[in-house]
Amino acid sequence: MVAPNFSETKYWLRTARTLSDALPYMRRYAGKTFVIKYGGHAMVDRELATVFARDIVLIKQVGINPVVVHGGGPQIGDLLKRLDIPSSFIDGLRVTDAATMEVVEMVLSGSINKTIVAAINKAGGVAAGLSGKNAGLLRAKKLLSEKGDLGFVGDPDRVDPLILKALEAAGIVAVIAPVGFGVDGETYNINADTAAGAIAAATKAARLLLLTDVPGVLDKDGNLIPELTLDQVRALMADGVITGGMIPKLETCIDAVEAGVEAAVILDGRVPHALLLEIFTSHGVGTLIKRE
Amino acid sequence: MVAPNFSETKYWLRTARTLSDALPYMRRYAGKTFVIKYGGHAMVDRELATVFARDIVLIKQVGINPVVVHGGGPQIGDLLKRLDIPSSFIDGLRVTDAATMEVVEMVLSGSINKTIVAAINKAGGVAAGLSGKNAGLLRAKKLLSEKGDLGFVGDPDRVDPLILKALEAAGIVAVIAPVGFGVDGETYNINADTAAGAIAAATKAARLLLLTDVPGVLDKDGNLIPELTLDQVRALMADGVITGGMIPKLETCIDAVEAGVEAAVILDGRVPHALLLEIFTSHGVGTLIKRE
Amino acid sequence: MVAPNFSETKYWLRTARTLSDALPYMRRYAGKTFVIKYGGHAMVDRELATVFARDIVLIKQVGINPVVVHGGGPQIGDLLKRLDIPSSFIDGLRVTDAATMEVVEMVLSGSINKTIVAAINKAGGVAAGLSGKNAGLLRAKKLLSEKGDLGFVGDPDRVDPLILKALEAAGIVAVIAPVGFGVDGETYNINADTAAGAIAAATKAARLLLLTDVPGVLDKDGNLIPELTLDQVRALMADGVITGGMIPKLETCIDAVEAGVEAAVILDGRVPHALLLEIFTSHGVGTLIKRE
Amino acid sequence: MVAPNFSETKYWLRTARTLSDALPYMRRYAGKTFVIKYGGHAMVDRELATVFARDIVLIKQVGINPVVVHGGGPQIGDLLKRLDIPSSFIDGLRVTDAATMEVVEMVLSGSINKTIVAAINKAGGVAAGLSGKNAGLLRAKKLLSEKGDLGFVGDPDRVDPLILKALEAAGIVAVIAPVGFGVDGETYNINADTAAGAIAAATKAARLLLLTDVPGVLDKDGNLIPELTLDQVRALMADGVITGGMIPKLETCIDAVEAGVEAAVILDGRVPHALLLEIFTSHGVGTLIKRE
Amino acid sequence: MVAPNFSETKYWLRTARTLSDALPYMRRYAGKTFVIKYGGHAMVDRELATVFARDIVLIKQVGINPVVVHGGGPQIGDLLKRLDIPSSFIDGLRVTDAATMEVVEMVLSGSINKTIVAAINKAGGVAAGLSGKNAGLLRAKKLLSEKGDLGFVGDPDRVDPLILKALEAAGIVAVIAPVGFGVDGETYNINADTAAGAIAAATKAARLLLLTDVPGVLDKDGNLIPELTLDQVRALMADGVITGGMIPKLETCIDAVEAGVEAAVILDGRVPHALLLEIFTSHGVGTLIKRE
Amino acid sequence: MVAPNFSETKYWLRTARTLSDALPYMRRYAGKTFVIKYGGHAMVDRELATVFARDIVLIKQVGINPVVVHGGGPQIGDLLKRLDIPSSFIDGLRVTDAATMEVVEMVLSGSINKTIVAAINKAGGVAAGLSGKNAGLLRAKKLLSEKGDLGFVGDPDRVDPLILKALEAAGIVAVIAPVGFGVDGETYNINADTAAGAIAAATKAARLLLLTDVPGVLDKDGNLIPELTLDQVRALMADGVITGGMIPKLETCIDAVEAGVEAAVILDGRVPHALLLEIFTSHGVGTLIKRE
Repeated sequence: MVAPNFSETKYWLRTARTLSDALPYMRRYAGKTFVIKYGGHAMVDRELATVFARDIVLIKQVGINPVVVHGGGPQIGDLLKRLDIPSSFIDGLRVTDAATMEVVEMVLSGSINKTIVAAINKAGGVAAGLSGKNAGLLRAKKLLSEKGDLGFVGDPDRVDPLILKALEAAGIVAVIAPVGFGVDGETYNINADTAAGAIAAATKAARLLLLTDVPGVLDKDGNLIPELTLDQVRALMADGVITGGMIPKLETCIDAVEAGVEAAVILDGRVPHALLLEIFTSHGVGTLIKRE
Repeated sequence: MVAPNFSETKYWLRTARTLSDALPYMRRYAGKTFVIKYGGHAMVDRELATVFARDIVLIKQVGINPVVVHGGGPQIGDLLKRLDIPSSFIDGLRVTDAATMEVVEMVLSGSINKTIVAAINKAGGVAAGLSGKNAGLLRAKKLLSEKGDLGFVGDPDRVDPLILKALEAAGIVAVIAPVGFGVDGETYNINADTAAGAIAAATKAARLLLLTDVPGVLDKDGNLIPELTLDQVRALMADGVITGGMIPKLETCIDAVEAGVEAAVILDGRVPHALLLEIFTSHGVGTLIKRE
Repeated sequence: MVAPNFSETKYWLRTARTLSDALPYMRRYAGKTFVIKYGGHAMVDRELATVFARDIVLIKQVGINPVVVHGGGPQIGDLLKRLDIPSSFIDGLRVTDAATMEVVEMVLSGSINKTIVAAINKAGGVAAGLSGKNAGLLRAKKLLSEKGDLGFVGDPDRVDPLILKALEAAGIVAVIAPVGFGVDGETYNINADTAAGAIAAATKAARLLLLTDVPGVLDKDGNLIPELTLDQVRALMADGVITGGMIPKLETCIDAVEAGVEAAVILDGRVPHALLLEIFTSHGVGTLIKRE
Repeated sequence: MVAPNFSETKYWLRTARTLSDALPYMRRYAGKTFVIKYGGHAMVDRELATVFARDIVLIKQVGINPVVVHGGGPQIGDLLKRLDIPSSFIDGLRVTDAATMEVVEMVLSGSINKTIVAAINKAGGVAAGLSGKNAGLLRAKKLLSEKGDLGFVGDPDRVDPLILKALEAAGIVAVIAPVGFGVDGETYNINADTAAGAIAAATKAARLLLLTDVPGVLDKDGNLIPELTLDQVRALMADGVITGGMIPKLETCIDAVEAGVEAAVILDGRVPHALLLEIFTSHGVGTLIKRE
Repeated sequence: MVAPNFSETKYWLRTARTLSDALPYMRRYAGKTFVIKYGGHAMVDRELATVFARDIVLIKQVGINPVVVHGGGPQIGDLLKRLDIPSSFIDGLRVTDAATMEVVEMVLSGSINKTIVAAINKAGGVAAGLSGKNAGLLRAKKLLSEKGDLGFVGDPDRVDPLILKALEAAGIVAVIAPVGFGVDGETYNINADTAAGAIAAATKAARLLLLTDVPGVLDKDGNLIPELTLDQVRALMADGVITGGMIPKLETCIDAVEAGVEAAVILDGRVPHALLLEIFTSHGVGTLIKRE
Repeated sequence: MVAPNFSETKYWLRTARTLSDALPYMRRYAGKTFVIKYGGHAMVDRELATVFARDIVLIKQVGINPVVVHGGGPQIGDLLKRLDIPSSFIDGLRVTDAATMEVVEMVLSGSINKTIVAAINKAGGVAAGLSGKNAGLLRAKKLLSEKGDLGFVGDPDRVDPLILKALEAAGIVAVIAPVGFGVDGETYNINADTAAGAIAAATKAARLLLLTDVPGVLDKDGNLIPELTLDQVRALMADGVITGGMIPKLETCIDAVEAGVEAAVILDGRVPHALLLEIFTSHGVGTLIKRE
């Protein structure tokens, strides 16, 4: 008779422990909505993009409802350049006139969005690309800046989750291009983080996951902070520990959590399978922000 | 006491008769799907486009499920020109290389599609724009020509109506850009008439309505033929009465009716409210093609 | 190529406009209950009666739930005469002893009611005749008059809409004879306008439509008043502008609107298709009374 | 300590046995339809009529769906006489001209029907009176006789149980006056036994119960036959044992059983609570006719 | 012709009256839960046990949901004796150490419970035996006595009716052994009356029926009291009229009624069909205790 | 900025891979029934028993419906010995007279069954213990042996899954003692493997998992065979490679697979988390037997 092999047993035990750890999360999150802002390296890197698409399919398979909101990429600048449409910037935001907006919409809704949809479908999922113009999904109002007219740059004004519910009911993953419409009939370009936050709030999501190109929120000594309450985030911002592009991201997280999202996470999108690790393991990957 | 005024009575009677005539059609078509190929003047002319959007909203309101499939327009050629991408044609079909396909998709999915969606929503409806890539809606296979390689020009290979059902259940009007995906992972440009016909067949539509820039099918003497059976259409084609662009349109109608669509109609999109007249009056506007 | 014919186009445009005007009403009223008091010329005139039956069928077809409450007619007097049962009147109300009540019930429930049901069924509908005695529909209490004993003349005391809901769920049009029952076990004759008003209140109807033999409410100069608020109606009654049989009709309208019916309309039943015009056109036919 | 009293125990045991015997029948018949032809002494005798109404309420309470079809009574002849409308008879059937039919309908639908409905409602039930004209319930064709024109005497031609299902779903007991309509638009008087049989067949009833003024089917020696198969009934009729009014009743039973009714019973309506005894005891009251 | 036989008529009338009396109770109790404590002679006597099983089946058949909680019997003492496990008692309660508890559980859950289940199934029912350990049904806490440690004797602490609802939904009769579990992981023996009372309270039962070996509650003169309010029960207990084992039974009844059970009944289980008589006749068998 | 730590990344990747591997199995098995024969070391060893209970809870949490059928253990022999009931054996089967059967049932249904239920509930699950006598679950027929009368040893004759469906619908895990009932009213002891196989067949289970004290099926050289078709199993048995207790286990597997169970697995119950590894990893633990 054969006794169970020892080294195999060790491997088995480790595998069993991982599963045993993951299963409760699946149970807890079944039927919940996770809004995922997708951009940066995770989107540009071909290999990471393939892993992302597979992870979305798996997350959907175990009963979670992922909603993907994607940002733009270098393609927008490329096409503007090819069409000789010059760009100026105010505070890092591209001033978006009508000609620019037309290009932005075509690239976001007509190119990047469809590429993500195709990748998820290729990985065995069923995804559908949506613009924020669809079925009143993202109504925007003009973003005002004291430093000049930003043109058709908008802020989410109202989110109508009707079409998201319809797709969820049909088992379809929504992939959203952050292009909104105004009551003035105009088209507005919306920051993808902000759009994701507004959609998370409107869908009472369990999580807002922002995939970024940094490890998460770092303390003064450059160490990753795994978890923060709203008050702690505000204190860090007041103390000047947090600077630069992390500030608007954290404001988006604060707004979402205050609007009823259970928690928001700044995730390192450069880690392969960052989504799976964040969702199904106890430690997580990045910084989780919750009410208290 | 006042007697009812005579001329008012006449107007009332006429109004009442129109309603009395229209109501049975509403009853008959309630819950049915009408696939509408939208293009040509009806799409380019600003005023007709506004009337079209309003009619779609009204048709939806009385319980019919309209599905709009739109064609391209001058914007594709314009953008190709601005980007210095040259085009060659085989039998009137644009040879579509990768660079061209990218532009075609951006214009169709990212610009024209969103303009139609916005118009319907502005008219009080709830529309959502879809590419054929969404949720496996339009799978295409490469269209082969003996006269040369057409590039990424495709023919519908399989239609998955899943997302159309989801939107219908949610009361949302689907507006579809005829861009498909191949099992090879490529993107294909599909003729809008053909795409509409395939979608009508897959959804067991009650009607396939092709909005055109002609009055309908004409006989030898140039008179409009209001109704034709499949056999009669084939006879007219064999006799050489029908020529030019009407031939592929009629072939699309034949295919759709043979695949189970109740009837197909070649409609004059230049007539304002052509949709309402076709659907809710006894005479109709254009040529109706049915099995027998 | 044939251009669209001009005079046809004019006709088409008019037709399209009528439809375009009517469709929103269908949408708005779908699933709503309209209680219609039917009597007078519209019931006695053979041709108008046929048109009425057809209109009821059409109204039902577009999703409205019509409930018909009919009055009596010359048949009651005729049968009383043939049976040598003498009648006396107090304030225009027939003093109804047991012998008279028996005749009234037989004529209302056994003859007029069945004639209306048969007409609607012949026009393609599915109607069922009901007495107020059925399933507790109309419980009545004796109407007291200072000028003498009116016998079995009753006022609605409680309405149980159970059977109306059952018929609506089965797609059946209810046609109601205004005969009620008392807790004393007696049968009571109820004025049809009053019965219709009580049923409209109990079913939270969208409309109470009273078909009459006058154009509607007229002002001092004999001109039709298209719309009145409850306060305006009360003012007109206080000013003595309204007199005679219009007073109890307006009191019924006031009671119904105060009890939650959206609006009540005094309609000219002599106009063919008065129901269709009132329901599906913007101007209406008669005087609409609403809260404010 | 008190021992259970003996004579009480005896009473208790008898009561328990009756219940113990009845309970399985309730189970077996729950949800089943019993069509009951109601007429004769059971209807004319005031006390029996009250007991009948109470029994109907109880039968309904334990989950059986009773459908009552009533006959006419002396009131028809009375009213014809008072109106000086002469009657002639062919084979015991009243020749029914238009004037007679009008009276028959008023008495059946407007008087007798409402009296039964009122009695059931008074006993705590919820009943609704129906004419066969309602919702296409009883379509009739003219009954032809070789001995002369019977006028508006009809035979059931088609039964549409739609409204019966609607009432059953709402917990309402249907009480039906056997007045039908023809495709010729005329009103027809139908024999109540025949109407009950046709309705039992159309509703796939578990039982057709004919309340009569005789003990049931008797053999040559005048003894009651408790149960007969279709073949036995036919043999008795061929042998001339059965004569007179029992013949058409048995033909109605045969037709019903052949059309799918589980069994038909000729019941003695003069026995108080005949319905309860027939339904809930093993021996029954009368003659049961079943397929084999 | 045969007239109905007189003596038969008398029998019929009596039968009809019993049914007529019973039917309203069936209606009233349909869908309600009756918790029945089963024990004593009714369980030990073979014939009574067969009648009990049949009655449970019949009660279930007419739509009542019986839940049976059984006590122990001589088998527990027998097995303890055979295993030489000695028993001591405090206030009539068996001191239950671990070895005793093991035997108690095996006999209750493994033997008596299964015997009852088998009897009901044999009588044509569908029963399932449950221990209070199942699906959290009966959580117990240790019963404390001032006179010594009772060991694993417990009192109901929390009842989770989940599994009872599941069985009811599937048409299965629950038969419960009064063995509970503690949060300490231990097994507890619970008095069957107390367990039945707690389950009746948790299921909002219409009745708690305690089958005993006495006629019910007796007054000073030894006469049965048919009905008592809570205040009257308390007064009788204060007056010392009630003594011995009846006291805890009445306390259980009081607790159940105060917790929302409509009424509790002390029944004489020695009367055959005691359940049927109590439930379906007006007089009942035993003493009914209700709020007021 | 902090770069992701390398050794953590390695751990993360391994974890992600395990999850990524497991997720498809969860999807595939969601809603499916897994019948698990539980016995041997996995049941006797305290630690393995705790792990087993936790695994059952986790399996249930991810949407699989586990049904546990347990065997007996040393307790049966112990109690028989304490009660001085002697046992004889035929072919390894205990001859089971009435006295023995009583003990077997008490130990299986009253002791072992409740211990497993308590363990699962303690691990956070909701389990209910069932005997095969419940609700007709396991009907048995006497097992005949040519070598003598085995007494109340039975074979599954008919399985009624009614109560299993009821518990599944309520989210309760069924734990089954293999005690059946005969049409003769007797109680039968059934082999747990056989009972599990019959239940798997009756519930159209996706898997029959037999937890044993061996690694699985071994080939001639003593190496584990991971997968076998029915034909291969039969060949191995014909070749004499398989001997002893493995033979009836494999016959049970063959029967189950032929009756529609997707696959049966002989599992090594001595491996901790054997269930999780078998269900959620690609290699599995033991020998899987499938149709072909």
